[in-house]
Amino acid sequence: MCMSKNTLTMPLHNTQMLSGNIGCYICKHLNYQSVAKLSYSRLRHLVPKRCMSSQAEDFSSEVETSLQKADTSGKYVAKKSLPKLKEPIVKNFFLGKLERSMLVYPELTKEELDQVNSVVAPIEKMFSEIDSKSIDANAKIPEDVLQQLKDFGLFGLQIPEQYGGLNLSSTAYARVTEVTSTDGSIAVTLAAHQSIGLKGILIAGTEIQKEKYLPKLASGENIAAFCLTEPSSGSDVASIKTRATLSEDGKYWILNGSKIWISNGSIADVFTVFAKTEIKTSEGETQEKITAFIVERAFGGITSGKPEDKLGIRGSNTCEVHFDNTRVPTENVLGEVGNGFKLAMHILNSGRFSMGSGGAGVLKKLINLTAQHAITRSQFGEKLSSFGLIKEKFAKMAISVYAMESMSYLTAHIMDDYLDPDMSIESAVIKIFSSESCWNCVSECLQIMGGSGYTKDLPHERYLRDSRIMQIFEGTNEILRLFVALQGLQFAGRSMKDTFLKLRDPHQNPLLMFKKRFRRSMGKAIIASTEPDLFEEVHLELEKEARILSSCLVSLGMAVEDILPLYGNKVVNEQMKLRRLADIAIDLYAMLACIGRASRSYCIGLKNSDHEVLLTRSFCYEADQRIKRNIYELTLPGESKIEIDDINRLIADIMFKSNGYAAEHPLARNW
Amino acid sequence: MCMSKNTLTMPLHNTQMLSGNIGCYICKHLNYQSVAKLSYSRLRHLVPKRCMSSQAEDFSSEVETSLQKADTSGKYVAKKSLPKLKEPIVKNFFLGKLERSMLVYPELTKEELDQVNSVVAPIEKMFSEIDSKSIDANAKIPEDVLQQLKDFGLFGLQIPEQYGGLNLSSTAYARVTEVTSTDGSIAVTLAAHQSIGLKGILIAGTEIQKEKYLPKLASGENIAAFCLTEPSSGSDVASIKTRATLSEDGKYWILNGSKIWISNGSIADVFTVFAKTEIKTSEGETQEKITAFIVERAFGGITSGKPEDKLGIRGSNTCEVHFDNTRVPTENVLGEVGNGFKLAMHILNSGRFSMGSGGAGVLKKLINLTAQHAITRSQFGEKLSSFGLIKEKFAKMAISVYAMESMSYLTAHIMDDYLDPDMSIESAVIKIFSSESCWNCVSECLQIMGGSGYTKDLPHERYLRDSRIMQIFEGTNEILRLFVALQGLQFAGRSMKDTFLKLRDPHQNPLLMFKKRFRRSMGKAIIASTEPDLFEEVHLELEKEARILSSCLVSLGMAVEDILPLYGNKVVNEQMKLRRLADIAIDLYAMLACIGRASRSYCIGLKNSDHEVLLTRSFCYEADQRIKRNIYELTLPGESKIEIDDINRLIADIMFKSNGYAAEHPLARNW
Repeated sequence: MCMSKNTLTMPLHNTQMLSGNIGCYICKHLNYQSVAKLSYSRLRHLVPKRCMSSQAEDFSSEVETSLQKADTSGKYVAKKSLPKLKEPIVKNFFLGKLERSMLVYPELTKEELDQVNSVVAPIEKMFSEIDSKSIDANAKIPEDVLQQLKDFGLFGLQIPEQYGGLNLSSTAYARVTEVTSTDGSIAVTLAAHQSIGLKGILIAGTEIQKEKYLPKLASGENIAAFCLTEPSSGSDVASIKTRATLSEDGKYWILNGSKIWISNGSIADVFTVFAKTEIKTSEGETQEKITAFIVERAFGGITSGKPEDKLGIRGSNTCEVHFDNTRVPTENVLGEVGNGFKLAMHILNSGRFSMGSGGAGVLKKLINLTAQHAITRSQFGEKLSSFGLIKEKFAKMAISVYAMESMSYLTAHIMDDYLDPDMSIESAVIKIFSSESCWNCVSECLQIMGGSGYTKDLPHERYLRDSRIMQIFEGTNEILRLFVALQGLQFAGRSMKDTFLKLRDPHQNPLLMFKKRFRRSMGKAIIASTEPDLFEEVHLELEKEARILSSCLVSLGMAVEDILPLYGNKVVNEQMKLRRLADIAIDLYAMLACIGRASRSYCIGLKNSDHEVLLTRSFCYEADQRIKRNIYELTLPGESKIEIDDINRLIADIMFKSNGYAAEHPLARNW
Repeated sequence: MCMSKNTLTMPLHNTQMLSGNIGCYICKHLNYQSVAKLSYSRLRHLVPKRCMSSQAEDFSSEVETSLQKADTSGKYVAKKSLPKLKEPIVKNFFLGKLERSMLVYPELTKEELDQVNSVVAPIEKMFSEIDSKSIDANAKIPEDVLQQLKDFGLFGLQIPEQYGGLNLSSTAYARVTEVTSTDGSIAVTLAAHQSIGLKGILIAGTEIQKEKYLPKLASGENIAAFCLTEPSSGSDVASIKTRATLSEDGKYWILNGSKIWISNGSIADVFTVFAKTEIKTSEGETQEKITAFIVERAFGGITSGKPEDKLGIRGSNTCEVHFDNTRVPTENVLGEVGNGFKLAMHILNSGRFSMGSGGAGVLKKLINLTAQHAITRSQFGEKLSSFGLIKEKFAKMAISVYAMESMSYLTAHIMDDYLDPDMSIESAVIKIFSSESCWNCVSECLQIMGGSGYTKDLPHERYLRDSRIMQIFEGTNEILRLFVALQGLQFAGRSMKDTFLKLRDPHQNPLLMFKKRFRRSMGKAIIASTEPDLFEEVHLELEKEARILSSCLVSLGMAVEDILPLYGNKVVNEQMKLRRLADIAIDLYAMLACIGRASRSYCIGLKNSDHEVLLTRSFCYEADQRIKRNIYELTLPGESKIEIDDINRLIADIMFKSNGYAAEHPLARNW
């Protein structure tokens, strides 16, 4: 008997969590015959193991067998010929859309998980013995530690096995990053090497280039660095001045220029360098375009400045790198001549997703340490952990970590499970959210420790210093917010071009305007033709949260529907509006990931899965509040509405005109 | 002709700011005859100098003469016999009340201002030459700098002249703090010395004690420290274990115990030490009570631990101080035996208000530095200052600084203009707001500088490290929030005791319940008998903001009216609710100070006073949003309302039970 959609998704069990009285009706409502017909992804969402009565145990073991079959017969086979991701995720948000299936939180098979754990366990042990305090104090990672990192294969985590790497999946890479990030200096050294330094070779290298460079990079015998930023080109990559000119014999590119903020700059052997090159168009015109090169220190003419004296990640090496007539063989062009800008973006975009699990790794360690203090320290005759203000802090930190983890692993899974999915926006979302959450949570942990947190006796202050860089590097959070919003708007604009054009001209399109008004009166947008019925995809316990997600999605769709026709292409200048759109998208992606994960955990009965539901509930509540506020400020001017953006713009303009703070002193007089 | 109240406060002129079209009708509406009858405080609010037409110049000069008369004849005389502050300010908020006159922003006479400026100018020059980078790097303030500070009288700013101090008013002290705070290490050294270290002698010292200690402390020949905190007593002051026992001959107290986080601990000559002493009650019982002592290092038995290795304020000395059978003469008891707890609170409470002007001093410097970068740095072919996201950051920073300044100087003026006003809550409000604003704004400035901000080439990272301590020391922000809320509630509870008792028992008091419902239906509370008509006190340009302030005040009154009867004394356990009440009070005090200041600036036509109006408008808008959110979460449970505090409490409880982060890993499986 094949169950209808409605039967499939009917409420299967009901729990009353807050009162602690948890009951489940599954045993009455479900029997194996009907379960067996369910698809794999649905099945696991309908089996709340943790609340099964003993009578249902047989049922449970039968289900388990069927799932194991599904695992080996289904998932492994699927991996060999990866499907394409049908719809973008965050981009779709801008149309008010989300594919229901995205709420099915992905998971590893038992074999895959065992494999990941077997890689992680020894690394975890090794990191527990690293003296991060002295790495920070001495501003250097000791040689023996570097050697250990190399021995564990940590310099070639995602390099294919044929070149000597560990060939980790994105999921496994994310998991390892959780551990390696517990030392900020090491994390940055490793990331500069493989997340950006050698990534270009992986993405765009020829077979010859891969064979030549990857083995020594994988073993750590060679260290890589990524040379993009210049004194006058930070976020504005296209304006770099480093130049490569083809030698007269056409065999070399001659490289000249200076790069700044180069992680591993003094220690790297191989650099991915971006430089302006002249290229001829098909019309015979000469254009300046960016080209990427693989540059060996051995090519000569390369000097490094003295290491930057930084606030944090002090054990990582950061410096200027100068190229003075460095001769780069033409076979060391990476990708195509003139294609460097795109490659640089591709490299940076692909590296960001792991900041979520990395940040979560740091925070979990620090939260545990701080919880110890809260549990043991007494003031006013009570443990700190009994105070409401302390509880609120811990809850908020856990919620942030939960969202970071959920987004990271959702993204990693998608990168693994689909054929070359474009997860650049999702990665940017993770980077923004995680960098800011890290900063806030580390600071809260420090605050809970009181005076001790402010000293070098505890690791808190080091983590605070280390974590501050996350908001700046690999794309500032400001640039990434614009990226998220503009990519989303562009996608929406292209997908619904005709509609938006018509909306720009209401008088010529009265029917569409009528439709818009009609649908608005029903709380719907016109650009999203299908309404999200997401709540059907998740456990009943999370129905409310799924409904919040749905309604926020619709709100974003409506906001886009208003904003795009109003501003058209000029929306690019509305940065304050773009920031709000990005913030909404960030909250939506986090909600999606949290709801999906908590639903899975609850259904399969993971330990503390009630807790996961609460984390998700609290996150969705806060996100909903933030989104409502952002939507309010995105909506078009109303009669009594204060245009806060206009006011803030005027405030700043006077400041820039006055070279800074512009209000007169409160003691100033005029007579 | 004496004008009626209504005539006095009628809208006198109307401006349209945002459009840039500023017009004023004052010349038509006002003539000297009517102005001359106005009271001094009103007068200055009705003279918008900056928008007077040339025809009105005569009028203007006449007004000026009358004002100068008011200054000398009124204010100076008043100072000699200070009036008492009639009503508390922030405490009154909890009844939904505010005296209109508080919106009249106080000011100094020309003579007073000249005096302040003459003190500040040379200090400003001296500080411009201080090498804060090397003070931080060497973790030491050089001797010659210390000597300069002493020569400028900076160790005795508020010590009366008869003991060799500068005898500055609170306003002047706040102004000097703006300058001295630009070096965090120096600021803390000076504050530890005089804001807390010697303050006890000023407050509670006998004439003999003052004569003995103050002169050398004022000159800086002796340095003071404040010894309260102990390993097991941070916020919980009452639990200290340091003990003083009277010697057998009754001449000495013998002091034993250890203190931690003592600023100036290794360099101080004179300590204010708090210790437990046995006292006999009138019933002959023995009780343990805290007593304060003036302890000289020369008394012996005093050792200091090694200086703490801190995140910031590294040039200030912080260490443990141990007392081992230190013999303190009985004449060195400070205040009365057993009265030490109250004195400690009094000292700490009085020291906090200057953190607002101090923080503002730091931020103005940093904002100006950062604005330079924004104005000159180009990316994407445009100056950073042209980007909306950058504008938004600068606007928000300026708004924070404006609020800090406004609150600090309002508070300082009240401390100067009234007889011993209790400004402890207002000072706590300033400390909380300023410490958090500093932290956020410094971080934003650093962010705007990009990579450079993360290095020691710029002062940003040092200011970030330095400013972090502000949230921790002199009462953590958590404790201070509870203090603000509980003091406010206690005041409200006492003031309206009968009403609250009746509200607890609705069935016995149907009439009151009816009155409550009736007044609620009109958007009013019952506890505040008079409704705030604040908008009449400010310039028309700020009427809307004054109305927001009024309505937020009423909301707080209503919230208190609901919460106190519901929880009674047990409200002390509702820390999350208390936090929200405190946050509302903070926003209200900041709004009050900003509106009053901007109104004054606008009326007297200070340079950029339009800008001040905008800063106030933006602040009030944001504060209103925050207050509405807090009020929503304070209101009683409703049908569809998520009780976010309950959820967060549950989340934290599971965490503490699990020793930390409690969610299973996203990769975890259950089969």
